[in-house]
Amino acid sequence: MATDAQQACFEAGIKFGSLYHQFAGTPVSPSSTRSLEAAMAEAIENQPFCESVAVEIHDDRVADAIDHENGYTELTGSLMDVEMRIAYEGVTVRTRMAMRDGYPLMELVSVDGVASDETN
Amino acid sequence: MATDAQQACFEAGIKFGSLYHQFAGTPVSPSSTRSLEAAMAEAIENQPFCESVAVEIHDDRVADAIDHENGYTELTGSLMDVEMRIAYEGVTVRTRMAMRDGYPLMELVSVDGVASDETN
Amino acid sequence: MATDAQQACFEAGIKFGSLYHQFAGTPVSPSSTRSLEAAMAEAIENQPFCESVAVEIHDDRVADAIDHENGYTELTGSLMDVEMRIAYEGVTVRTRMAMRDGYPLMELVSVDGVASDETN
Amino acid sequence: MATDAQQACFEAGIKFGSLYHQFAGTPVSPSSTRSLEAAMAEAIENQPFCESVAVEIHDDRVADAIDHENGYTELTGSLMDVEMRIAYEGVTVRTRMAMRDGYPLMELVSVDGVASDETN
Repeated sequence: MATDAQQACFEAGIKFGSLYHQFAGTPVSPSSTRSLEAAMAEAIENQPFCESVAVEIHDDRVADAIDHENGYTELTGSLMDVEMRIAYEGVTVRTRMAMRDGYPLMELVSVDGVASDETN
Repeated sequence: MATDAQQACFEAGIKFGSLYHQFAGTPVSPSSTRSLEAAMAEAIENQPFCESVAVEIHDDRVADAIDHENGYTELTGSLMDVEMRIAYEGVTVRTRMAMRDGYPLMELVSVDGVASDETN
Repeated sequence: MATDAQQACFEAGIKFGSLYHQFAGTPVSPSSTRSLEAAMAEAIENQPFCESVAVEIHDDRVADAIDHENGYTELTGSLMDVEMRIAYEGVTVRTRMAMRDGYPLMELVSVDGVASDETN
Repeated sequence: MATDAQQACFEAGIKFGSLYHQFAGTPVSPSSTRSLEAAMAEAIENQPFCESVAVEIHDDRVADAIDHENGYTELTGSLMDVEMRIAYEGVTVRTRMAMRDGYPLMELVSVDGVASDETN
């Protein structure tokens, strides 16, 4: 069976995939970044074991991505940073999405609180 | 060719389909309805010819839809009312989504401003 | 009130917005284009008044959009052409999405079958 | 730092969240279940470390969920079963989504292949 730490990491992944595929493609401009950040964070915080979500959509990147007459672009991973904290049965998992070599990467930052006698 | 009024109605439909399928499925609870309403309205207002969007997610319906231990539900059309105003080449189209006989229906409310000599 | 032609155009717009915002962001590679085309078309054909949907995802554009080690990209409007036929109360509307000046544009192609005595 | 097994579970969670929030809300009827199953599986199999995805949308549940004149419903977790196999650095994770007490639950089925000397 899975350990609590593995289960916590599974839950953390679910939240990241949910956040990304629920909101990617949303029309966004510098005037709508704050409301979208708030909605994304509060929506995913509803999910089980999700203690906190912080979303930062970079206005300058959004502005740079708008290269046509319409005045908006669509949300992608390259426009934002995300940090989350998941807690499951005493295990706290920290994750983030940030640009790595030009691509947005979802990654585990830390897995803490596992009982010392627990194996994988 | 399409008339300006027809084009305006096409644009209005695009916004409704966009709003619905971008945000349906978003985790929502009574504590996150306000931020989601704001994000939905501001996101769709970015789209061309979209003058205003008002989204009302009914907290009581959200609460009623939460029937399990997780404390949240997923956004569907039955939980909200939406009104939009689209303007295209002098034609103003008003639309809304509201419950009709137990189902959410997207509908044209009015199409105004068509020049009197224009035919379909 | 809206004419049947206007209503048909509104319905056509709903289908386009739905198709785009339901499926934009889907992971896609040249090996998964055919199944995604089929699913998109059949899904939207379920919607009211939607007679036919044809989706062509261009394998060469998908391959060009894959510029990193993962071997896939995310579906956007620039990777595909879409054609739809909507029928509402005797009015047939044809629409398409295609690239115009480097951007995907949803447009009305024709609005046919309006009774000769109908005005906007 | 995270172990390979934890990382594998994180990746497995990402795929589940992605699949669910990309495709939930898709219009579906008994005539479009097969194409949607295929598109969902092939789309998510594009993602890194995802070896296989099997989606079964139950035609009978879809038919039961269609209770109005339109003849379709929207995809939710209660209409389908999903199984996935993720492989990361020698660790194989099996996951599934199935109904538990009336609700769809995403769960780890097994985490195999961890080197014997690895902890957490």
